[in-house]
Amino acid sequence: MRLLVLGGDAAGMTAASLVLRRAPDTEIVVVERGSHTSYSMCGIPYYVGGEIETSEDLVVRTPEEFQQQGMTVHMGTEAIAIDPQARTVTVRVLATGEEREERYDELLYALGAHPSVPDLPGLAEHGYVVHTLDEGERLRTALDRRDDVKSVVVVGAGYIGMELAEALVERGLRTTLVDMAEQVMGTLDPDMAAHVQGALEDFGVRLGLGERLERIDADDAGCRSVQTDRDCYEADLVVLAMGAKPNVELAAAAGCRVGETGALAVDRGLRTNVEHVWAAGDCVESTHLVSGQQVNVQLGTHANKQAKIAAINLTGGDTVFPGVVGTAVTKVCQWEIARTGLSEREAEAAGLDGVTASFTGTASAGYMPDPGTVHVKMMAERGTGRVLGAQLVGTGNVGKRIDTAATWCQLGVRVADAQLFDLSYAPPFGGVWDLLAVAARKLVSALDLEPRL
Amino acid sequence: MRLLVLGGDAAGMTAASLVLRRAPDTEIVVVERGSHTSYSMCGIPYYVGGEIETSEDLVVRTPEEFQQQGMTVHMGTEAIAIDPQARTVTVRVLATGEEREERYDELLYALGAHPSVPDLPGLAEHGYVVHTLDEGERLRTALDRRDDVKSVVVVGAGYIGMELAEALVERGLRTTLVDMAEQVMGTLDPDMAAHVQGALEDFGVRLGLGERLERIDADDAGCRSVQTDRDCYEADLVVLAMGAKPNVELAAAAGCRVGETGALAVDRGLRTNVEHVWAAGDCVESTHLVSGQQVNVQLGTHANKQAKIAAINLTGGDTVFPGVVGTAVTKVCQWEIARTGLSEREAEAAGLDGVTASFTGTASAGYMPDPGTVHVKMMAERGTGRVLGAQLVGTGNVGKRIDTAATWCQLGVRVADAQLFDLSYAPPFGGVWDLLAVAARKLVSALDLEPRL
Repeated sequence: MRLLVLGGDAAGMTAASLVLRRAPDTEIVVVERGSHTSYSMCGIPYYVGGEIETSEDLVVRTPEEFQQQGMTVHMGTEAIAIDPQARTVTVRVLATGEEREERYDELLYALGAHPSVPDLPGLAEHGYVVHTLDEGERLRTALDRRDDVKSVVVVGAGYIGMELAEALVERGLRTTLVDMAEQVMGTLDPDMAAHVQGALEDFGVRLGLGERLERIDADDAGCRSVQTDRDCYEADLVVLAMGAKPNVELAAAAGCRVGETGALAVDRGLRTNVEHVWAAGDCVESTHLVSGQQVNVQLGTHANKQAKIAAINLTGGDTVFPGVVGTAVTKVCQWEIARTGLSEREAEAAGLDGVTASFTGTASAGYMPDPGTVHVKMMAERGTGRVLGAQLVGTGNVGKRIDTAATWCQLGVRVADAQLFDLSYAPPFGGVWDLLAVAARKLVSALDLEPRL
Repeated sequence: MRLLVLGGDAAGMTAASLVLRRAPDTEIVVVERGSHTSYSMCGIPYYVGGEIETSEDLVVRTPEEFQQQGMTVHMGTEAIAIDPQARTVTVRVLATGEEREERYDELLYALGAHPSVPDLPGLAEHGYVVHTLDEGERLRTALDRRDDVKSVVVVGAGYIGMELAEALVERGLRTTLVDMAEQVMGTLDPDMAAHVQGALEDFGVRLGLGERLERIDADDAGCRSVQTDRDCYEADLVVLAMGAKPNVELAAAAGCRVGETGALAVDRGLRTNVEHVWAAGDCVESTHLVSGQQVNVQLGTHANKQAKIAAINLTGGDTVFPGVVGTAVTKVCQWEIARTGLSEREAEAAGLDGVTASFTGTASAGYMPDPGTVHVKMMAERGTGRVLGAQLVGTGNVGKRIDTAATWCQLGVRVADAQLFDLSYAPPFGGVWDLLAVAARKLVSALDLEPRL
């Protein structure tokens, strides 16, 4: 069997590796546009900030290592057309422009997503994007070399934008974070995002929320300022972290169905509707297990899992990727921010009747020195009491705590049961009632369920 | 209704408060031997160490506050006999020796546990126990006042013993921790306990494991040394943290059934077999939801929950305490130690065929500066792949992470499913595959289940 893999990052290389393990006779050919394989995209902000020394630190395995394992890896090469009848892909070597056909028995489409750069004056020329490690290297090099950079505007206040803004402040730069939305991190409810905004401002990040980007102004010396519909921000450098769109064009042109999310529609076995064409990673839709709807969540965790499921199935196995529950975590300015399940907005869009409970607790027992702060919010479904989502913003013991709520969302746990789960307790980690159990208790009460503890 | 509560700590006062909320007309009378109500027993080591300033900091609510709510609280008063036919309890005022009868319609027995002090020379006279806040105060006062105390021996290397040993080293004392077992923390597997032992030794705690206590030697000036079957340890002060036995004698004498664990046998509604007598807290058995066996786990979390279930049922409700899964967490010398479910020994004793997977990972992504260390061990049942237990010992992101595995134990989750759960990922919190998911994957492989990712 000849497996052709388009895209050499998390999804593509994970699948290729597992296929090789399961079916060592497979001829595996990988085509990758960039110059790195299999790296941690999530590490880029830490590399840009300088906390991580070199870009190699983020690379899990190099093209050479994959070659040594017996794969053929074509770097600097992009796919430009798929012919599903002939089972060939036309590829182009970027350096030379040379084009050729690559034949496949099975094709894994893992082209990820490409950063959103609106068609506004100055953006394409002057905005740094940081979606790939190559792009991260360009930004880091600019920051390291250019003494004239004193102020930076980051456009887009999602995880990456916030992490970058923090990293830039730590580099001593005047940093402004601009977003069209009235809040940071659109996957949080506004009241929870407000805590994060406070932390960013306290840390020295200037916020320009609810502002629509209009243009980047530049002169001969380069970028000068960022103009929004409400303000103008001095900017020696502009970073665009405005999210990314699933990279589906090539697959769509070959007849692969694109879902409402804009990502490729695949079955739970990661098959597209076109025979012998599989897809995994940031370019595909998954089922959200709480809402039942299709979603496109671009995270390495999903890419890795989907890739393995695809690898198993395209080597004769039969297994499924169950779906996602929207779990995400980040750390910004010493605050750990975590969420899972649905936000209020998402629940409403899914037609679910969610009731929320919010409160503020401590990260360790209240009587411990410096017990910290944790803002907690949980949502459950009226009637059933099923956990629909949870959000945590706190100074400690928050990040990995969300996985408990994620499991509750994954399994459709009811708050009436969850409040009585045997969760851990010791003074350094919180009070005798775990914060998630307290949230569950409050929801039992709000939803008029039993037992009301 | 007249509710008589024996024991004014977590279980007793939590139940009393909820009864008052649900049935405000109830006449509630509480009898407590000591001088504090409703305090955090788990905070005592931190108070002894000085990290927590005063013992009042550990008190959630004082007797006066309960009185103001409308309860009658008799402090310094102990119950000495229950007459279930007459529905009376004979109580004695400790200060005066005065005895009287207290009548009840319903009786909540919440007398907790009393510290185990073996009948060996010198122990009763010279050993400090720290099971109650009164006892904690005595130890703290001794440490604060006695300049001559340079070396301390702590007997018993469970949570409390380890936490105390750490606190004593931090007070600048030469500290030895002695236990009959060959390991600290008997609820951990020995290989996991070894990591904790290394940390204690690195911190400066001398360990005397696998040593049977023989006597405390003293002279006129007081305690001098602790003699075990293998060694003799200099000791100006000795702390006994040898666990505690459920305080069941009074209930047993009144006809309440005592289970094999030595704790009171109650139904899931917290009823003893004697009519109108309820029990909750450290003195009762619970069902271990993984083994199905009865266990006595002395933790404030269970006491609180059981108390609330009892309160609901004795005011006309009908609900159950589902049981426990053996979740526990502590922090010793910067290491977070957490466990849930069954240990290997416990699984064997329960007749379960458990297979384990162990490995060492990092507390944040491997490429982050100072990524830390987390030792991970998980056990699943051969055949079903059901998660039987998990243990974590690590430098960060460990404590509250155990709650995820606890939920898996609670719900009988299979490792094949767990490995695909949507758990959180960001570089400050670990790698792209969560450590618990990695453990689940390894177990899928070890148990020859599918899918093998």
